[in-house]
Amino acid sequence: MTPPLRLRLADEQDHDALWVVLEPTIRAGETWALPCGWTRAEALAYWFAGPHEVWVADRGEGMARDVVGTYFLRPAQLGPGSHVANAGYMVRPDAWGCGVAGAMCDHSLARARERGFAAMQFNFVVSTNARAIALWERKGFRIIGRAPGAYRHATLGAVDSVMMHRELGPEVSAGAADRG
Amino acid sequence: MTPPLRLRLADEQDHDALWVVLEPTIRAGETWALPCGWTRAEALAYWFAGPHEVWVADRGEGMARDVVGTYFLRPAQLGPGSHVANAGYMVRPDAWGCGVAGAMCDHSLARARERGFAAMQFNFVVSTNARAIALWERKGFRIIGRAPGAYRHATLGAVDSVMMHRELGPEVSAGAADRG
Repeated sequence: MTPPLRLRLADEQDHDALWVVLEPTIRAGETWALPCGWTRAEALAYWFAGPHEVWVADRGEGMARDVVGTYFLRPAQLGPGSHVANAGYMVRPDAWGCGVAGAMCDHSLARARERGFAAMQFNFVVSTNARAIALWERKGFRIIGRAPGAYRHATLGAVDSVMMHRELGPEVSAGAADRG
Repeated sequence: MTPPLRLRLADEQDHDALWVVLEPTIRAGETWALPCGWTRAEALAYWFAGPHEVWVADRGEGMARDVVGTYFLRPAQLGPGSHVANAGYMVRPDAWGCGVAGAMCDHSLARARERGFAAMQFNFVVSTNARAIALWERKGFRIIGRAPGAYRHATLGAVDSVMMHRELGPEVSAGAADRG
């Protein structure tokens, strides 16, 4: 039986495990607009950048840690735009298809609402990442924009990116998300 | 007669004049998603942030400087998204309506093309900023997305922001833009 997924704030002891999560996605150049040659230090500096609140999805039992995914939450803009949240998610490749991204999305929506954000926006979802777009749509997001050729996909060439958005209604509960 | 507008890279001697350009727009909270309480140091740190190439529109004669506007140019995204440029423009209030923004836009398009960018994108144009939107449309941009209620306007409350985009065709010439 798979141990339950626990969402908790990341700390320094997670850095090695986080790099294992981040590296394959960064190297692949198929879903994120990050330099695929980035080092561990560059990737971690980005992931833990000033306004980022970093969470991990941990499947470890007892005191053991087993970080299978991570997300950051931040304001999408500054000042008069800071009531809208933005988040980014990555899952360790061997845990793809196990509901980790969905659980993290539920948690981030609850957490964003808890912090008083009015909406959540994804600024740059690669249009060929059909699995992600379908998941975000199931989570209540809709496409609100499309930037033509904005992403140079490692194998497909120039593809569009889309922006996705949802309001943060009162229906999202942090407790429910934690069990997601 | 109004002296011609000269576009040149900003340097440290421009900081005082730049703050005179930036401050009214930041304080107003009507067009930019920047904290309206920002200090001079915070505003300049943002304007000169790492990836920003900062230009000024100077109407000074001879050796005199008279900075009436400024813009920054940067990649819109990192890595596989870094072929798209992003820019932000501000004009000193007493120079509004004198063609400064248009001249800076022309120059930024030429400069972006010179640097090898394939397109230019504005991520966050406040939808009530009709003058700006009309100008960008005259400059070849079109609206590619709309984020509902993304901006808390100082007097109008929550209003939408729009994303605008244009390709960088070979028709833009840096020389022509410099004379704009």
